[in-house]
Order: sequence, then C-alpha cells, then structure tokens
Amino acid sequence: MPAVSDLVPTRERILNAGAVLFRRQGYAATGLKQVVAEADAPFGSLYYHFPQGKEQLGEEVLRAGGAFFLVLYEQIVDAAPDVVTGVRDFFAGAAETLVATDYADACPIATVAGEIASTHESLRRTASDVFESWAAAATDRFAAAGIRRGPARKLALAVVALIEGGFLLSRAARSTEPMDASGQAAVALVRAALEAV
Amino acid sequence: MPAVSDLVPTRERILNAGAVLFRRQGYAATGLKQVVAEADAPFGSLYYHFPQGKEQLGEEVLRAGGAFFLVLYEQIVDAAPDVVTGVRDFFAGAAETLVATDYADACPIATVAGEIASTHESLRRTASDVFESWAAAATDRFAAAGIRRGPARKLALAVVALIEGGFLLSRAARSTEPMDASGQAAVALVRAALEAV
Repeated sequence: MPAVSDLVPTRERILNAGAVLFRRQGYAATGLKQVVAEADAPFGSLYYHFPQGKEQLGEEVLRAGGAFFLVLYEQIVDAAPDVVTGVRDFFAGAAETLVATDYADACPIATVAGEIASTHESLRRTASDVFESWAAAATDRFAAAGIRRGPARKLALAVVALIEGGFLLSRAARSTEPMDASGQAAVALVRAALEAV
Repeated sequence: MPAVSDLVPTRERILNAGAVLFRRQGYAATGLKQVVAEADAPFGSLYYHFPQGKEQLGEEVLRAGGAFFLVLYEQIVDAAPDVVTGVRDFFAGAAETLVATDYADACPIATVAGEIASTHESLRRTASDVFESWAAAATDRFAAAGIRRGPARKLALAVVALIEGGFLLSRAARSTEPMDASGQAAVALVRAALEAV
C-alpha cells in the first residue's frame, strides 16, 4: 500500500498540516519543523513551496480554510428547504464537528485571527477578507429570501459572530451547549428578520 | 516624581503586563522575559510571585480579567434603567474600547482561550470558569427581569457568544461594524425574550 506522502502532493500536505496545527494550538505555538514533520515532508520543501515562510503559510491556510467553510455553508444552505433550516443545519453541523474532533478542530480562522490581529498585518487582512467573504455570502442568501440588504448585512455579521463565539465558548467548556444556544439565537434572528419583510 | 515601579507592587505589575501582552499578541507569542521587561521587574520576581511559571501567570491573568469584566458588566447593567438598555450599553462600551485601543485591547480571555483550549488543560478550565461566571451573571439578570431560567440561560450564552464573536470580527476588520451588528442582535434577542414573558 503506498504511503500518504506518495499520493498527496507535498505542497498540499504542508498546507493541511499547517491548517490542523494552527487550528488546534494556534499560530505562535506552531513551529515550521512541527509542520514539516506532521506533513512527512523534508524541511527544505517548506521554503520551496512557501518562499516567504511561516507568514505565507499562515495566509494560505486561512484562505484555504475560509474557502472550504464557504463551500460547506453554500452546500448546507442549498440542501435545506429554506434559509431558516439552512442556518439551523449549519450550527448543528458545527456542534457535531466539535464533538467528533474532541473539541479540537473548530473554525480554521478563529484561533489564528485572535492571536495576530494586532501583530501581523498581512494575516489580519487575510482573516478579515475571509470573514468578509462569509458575511457577503450570508447577506446574499438572506437578501434572496426577501430581507432588505441593509438588515441582511447586519444579520449576516451577527450570525458569523454567533458561530465564532459559539466555537470559542464550546471549546472552552468542552460542551456543545454554547453552540446550541448560539444556533437557536441565529435561527430566532433570521426568523424575526423574515417576519419583518 | 516616583516611578510607577515604586507605587504599584511587583506582583500586580507582572499581572498587568501579562494581561496586556496575552490580550494583544496571545499566550504562546508572549515570553516571560517580555513580561518582566514590560512590568519593569527583575526576572527572578516572576518565579517568586508565580512559582509555577507561565501557566500560573496565564491562569491568574484570565481570572483577574474575567472578574474585572464581570464587575464592569454589573456596573453597566446597574446604571441602566432596564435590562435591554444595559445590554445595549455594554456592547456600545465594547465598541468604544476597540476604537480607543486601536483594536488591540479586546476581551481579556478570548485570544488566550482559543489558543490553549486543546493544549493546556488547566488554562482551558480557567477560561471555561470565566465564561461560565459571565453566563451565570447574565442569566440571573435576565431571570430577574422575568424571563424563565431555561430560556434566560440560553439567551445569556448567546449574548456572551455575540460579544466574543463581535470582538474577533471587529479586531480582524478594524471596524466596529461587526460589534455594532452583534449588539443590535443581542438587544433584539433580549427584547423578544421579554415579550414572550
């Protein structure tokens, strides 16, 4: 049986390892040696694929994680019969992920975003771009359901804040109770906005 | 004029310096040498006051920050004519703090809590205790306003999630827009819960 390192390209293995480590233990605590060891890659390959080093790896991990979550969100909402159900299903999926990963693998952006907001300007901009892409996608969905764009934008930001706050509180408590409460609050907010249409 | 180091006890200066650095740049990125330099304290004094080192300093910073925010919350809610106004004022104060500190000094717990949730069990428990103390205080306030304890607890968790998510998104965006939207959502949720009484 071929090893994983023979099947997945080195660059992708490094990105995946970086994503897992940044998400679980943060940006500063993760050393590049640990990333290449986890990726089963030679150390030199990191600088070959990411010439600007750790900050470039961080940016690409944030962008890839942000894009992955956006696709996941779109898929869940597309599969739901309506926007309220879509929001409920998304939070339920977040709670399931927390349990399935023993509260380790939460949002691919949050842990890093908190650490670097005041210290690494390029990473801050990348995290901001990702959050903005989520808010824009949710705004479009809410607007398509009939909510005016102004209120839809505020609603979208609140829903993203609820999912991020839910991840943080649920990881700290090792309980899905905060994520469940956040999901119920998000559903109530979306429902109220639809009723006001 | 006497120096600050003559007026504030060493232990307190170390705690304050740790709080500022952990909040701005995270737990892992903060070295103990940087803490004592910022505190204008001799290196040995850190281990004299915090024999278990960085993890003990982290725990005490989280506890002190958590207690400070809890007092602030109680003061703001006490000064407000009703619970809805109290929640609105608290989020407005959070937005003002973000602007006044150039988006650096946000929640004293959040940055550290995300980093250490899966790697430092004692710090995770401390962060969880702090979040729980906030949720319990908010639950009591909502219950005192007539909301049943079950819904009051869920509402409290959602409000804490909104403030934490609001801090994260606002720091990334360097804009109070997410915190403002989170505050409006929190006010709407509290109002709806009161109307259901």
